[in-house]
Amino acid sequence: MSEEDAESDEHGTSGTFDEHGSRTDGGRDDLEAVVAAVRERIEPDAEERDRLRTVADRLIERAETAATERCPDADVMQVGSTARDTWISGDRDIDIFVRFPPELDRETLERYGLEVGHETLPEGHEEYAEHPYVKGTVEGFDIDVVPCFRLESATEIRSAVDRTPFHTSYLQARLDDELTADVRLAKQFLKGIGAYGSDLRTRGFSGYLTELLVVEYGGFRGLLEAAAEWQPPVELDPEDHGQETFDDPLVVIDPTDPERNVAAVCAAENVARLQHYARRFLDTPRTEVFEPDDPGSLDETALHAHLERRGTTPVAVRFEAPDLVEDQLYPQLRKSLEGITTGLDDRGFDVFRATTFADDAAVIVAELAVADRPAVERHDGPPIHVRSHADGFYEAYADDPDAYGPFIDGDRYVTERPREFTTARGFLESDRLFDVGLGAHVETALTEEYEVLVGDEIAALCEAFGRELARYFEPRP
Amino acid sequence: MSEEDAESDEHGTSGTFDEHGSRTDGGRDDLEAVVAAVRERIEPDAEERDRLRTVADRLIERAETAATERCPDADVMQVGSTARDTWISGDRDIDIFVRFPPELDRETLERYGLEVGHETLPEGHEEYAEHPYVKGTVEGFDIDVVPCFRLESATEIRSAVDRTPFHTSYLQARLDDELTADVRLAKQFLKGIGAYGSDLRTRGFSGYLTELLVVEYGGFRGLLEAAAEWQPPVELDPEDHGQETFDDPLVVIDPTDPERNVAAVCAAENVARLQHYARRFLDTPRTEVFEPDDPGSLDETALHAHLERRGTTPVAVRFEAPDLVEDQLYPQLRKSLEGITTGLDDRGFDVFRATTFADDAAVIVAELAVADRPAVERHDGPPIHVRSHADGFYEAYADDPDAYGPFIDGDRYVTERPREFTTARGFLESDRLFDVGLGAHVETALTEEYEVLVGDEIAALCEAFGRELARYFEPRP
Repeated sequence: MSEEDAESDEHGTSGTFDEHGSRTDGGRDDLEAVVAAVRERIEPDAEERDRLRTVADRLIERAETAATERCPDADVMQVGSTARDTWISGDRDIDIFVRFPPELDRETLERYGLEVGHETLPEGHEEYAEHPYVKGTVEGFDIDVVPCFRLESATEIRSAVDRTPFHTSYLQARLDDELTADVRLAKQFLKGIGAYGSDLRTRGFSGYLTELLVVEYGGFRGLLEAAAEWQPPVELDPEDHGQETFDDPLVVIDPTDPERNVAAVCAAENVARLQHYARRFLDTPRTEVFEPDDPGSLDETALHAHLERRGTTPVAVRFEAPDLVEDQLYPQLRKSLEGITTGLDDRGFDVFRATTFADDAAVIVAELAVADRPAVERHDGPPIHVRSHADGFYEAYADDPDAYGPFIDGDRYVTERPREFTTARGFLESDRLFDVGLGAHVETALTEEYEVLVGDEIAALCEAFGRELARYFEPRP
Repeated sequence: MSEEDAESDEHGTSGTFDEHGSRTDGGRDDLEAVVAAVRERIEPDAEERDRLRTVADRLIERAETAATERCPDADVMQVGSTARDTWISGDRDIDIFVRFPPELDRETLERYGLEVGHETLPEGHEEYAEHPYVKGTVEGFDIDVVPCFRLESATEIRSAVDRTPFHTSYLQARLDDELTADVRLAKQFLKGIGAYGSDLRTRGFSGYLTELLVVEYGGFRGLLEAAAEWQPPVELDPEDHGQETFDDPLVVIDPTDPERNVAAVCAAENVARLQHYARRFLDTPRTEVFEPDDPGSLDETALHAHLERRGTTPVAVRFEAPDLVEDQLYPQLRKSLEGITTGLDDRGFDVFRATTFADDAAVIVAELAVADRPAVERHDGPPIHVRSHADGFYEAYADDPDAYGPFIDGDRYVTERPREFTTARGFLESDRLFDVGLGAHVETALTEEYEVLVGDEIAALCEAFGRELARYFEPRP
């Protein structure tokens, strides 16, 4: 469960189109026909809705009983896409928020919240987001029971979860049947292009953001037509109440909170991705774009062929993934990737492209254009006219048998000294790796143990990370 | 003969100190003792002076006769260091200027000048600086007979040679015996450190500049003490009449021409070199510094050892030296070196250090830190929101079987395409070599024929350029 919306972390998990036959035509259906086919596929049918409604109603009733027993002024609210009917066939998330009056102290709220959660979901377990909450499975549905404060306005919130009920109320008032159907299309489109989800691995469009955009642009097609022509930074403020400025490519001021950019997490790449696919889809509508692309797994033969064709030298640092949720792990992996890339570049091992991924193991991969350096490096000294520095520099190297020079280049002394690392492996296997900016948990994990793979040795990653390697070596928008 | 002073192109040709024994003490003589020993060595003795005087007087008389026969108002003047007694034992240049009245037209001046030259030097041959002139050898002395206009002021000059008599007059009025002896020391010092000569190979201190500096700072020691503390740009204006500003590290306004920087040719490196050696000499006076350093010739074994130790990959372009005087050749070689270095760097072949030299063959050498590149190169496309460019870029590469991508990085499309050159040799042997900035005559020479040497192949340069390679691989200030 993210702070944005419960479905934000389930990117790419919807079923395939294969059994529907709409992929196999491969033709250039016109947009309406394509949209109709996709709607058919993603709209939950009556039976699926009934099953969900039945389970949700039963749990809400249970939660209400448990909550009002403890605090007569409490109430219960279903939130998220299943509350707003913007869920996609196959989604199985039911989010139940238990709202307590703001007079309650936080400790009591948390205690009541867990008690209500356990009474509602006797098989459930506790998790922790902003408050602790209870999560469980009932008849195949994933249920969260989350306590929050019931406030007058979203600007008074004490934690991010308090905001969620405002979002649901705001959207429920604006989504008619047609817009609701278009929200489903927009979500499925974003899933298909890999830009759906405000989790920190994806850094894409949250469910709430998608719904706001569909409302703002009057539908799915309106959103695509607008996105195709976006000139970031794009700034939307549905309630016209924003005052702060944001340094993000997409800014959507939260209608329930003027100080918040709903799209703060959305990376420039995902904004660009939506633009790219919106243009292509409006030009040539296809059902395929609504389905997440599965690149298949890159096998060793294909990997070797890529390395041969590219003439680069990949290096990989592999270690045990720190025991963190993805929203904590991926920022740390990205920070470590940035640090290691900079560390390599600074030492002359030019990084051509780089990536990071994890499951049980975590891997940072840098593809090098230059993997070897000469044994010497140039060391520019001070200008000779800055006498105090110049004399010190000259004295330091004049009798150094390992240094060439000092000699004069322009107005400076220069020496050529032995280079610390002549291979990328040498650097990556040294303690200097710990001088670069690493995520804290990544640093701890590396202190334990890590392995450096160079060149063809990265074939060892194919088994666990064949899909990630395929995405890397066969990149698409 | 340069425009500055006749001795400017004879850098490093004075004899050695070996026969004087002053080198073998190796001790830290105090400054006065060292200076005395050097003076002893470089001061022409009575016999040497007499020989020169006798020859000079005879030739001047001949020139006067020949000149006044043609133009009664002409006169003859000896200029340069042998006229000012600032010559160093072993120097053999006698410069005789034949001055004609400014009313004479240039054509007639040139005709008279050559006629006088040939009558003065019956064995002489014609050369061309600003005017044609006659050069010859008499009793071991190198004689120039140069025509010029006799003007009221150096600001009226029509060509650079017209200025020379003013320089001689200016200095003759200011050089007493002590300063004259110190000029000799300063010149020998600059020769010893390789910074003497305003020719465009050396780009150092001309004779005239050296004499002005000694006068300005009151002697050899004064010059060294000042130079040790110089904070370039250093600006001297002995007559306090300069108005223009110059963008040179050393500016000495010509006392005879307020618009001219006498040190315009002097490179930052040679200013720095004088500072470096002035400090060392004042700290530890040694006679050795007055003698040009002979690095010996680098043989193949030593070359291989350096390449092994450095781990770099030298590449050399060897071609027949264009038939030009050094003052024309070296600027062209440097321009070509700059162009080729940039061409290599631009293609990812990182140039570590580079040099150029010539005798019959000319060579441009670039020592590479990176001699090989991968088979692909990154090609950043336009930002995706610039739709017209972005669409064109995407269409161009979407179906290109040789390109990876397009994919999205940040807000841009990126492709990875085959790289034009994966080796420095490939670039240097291609026509693209002619796209870089080359000196015009170098370009012509390369069009004829050239050879590319890579790595150990540069051992082929040891025979002709062993000294230059020794200077390169054993660099000193």
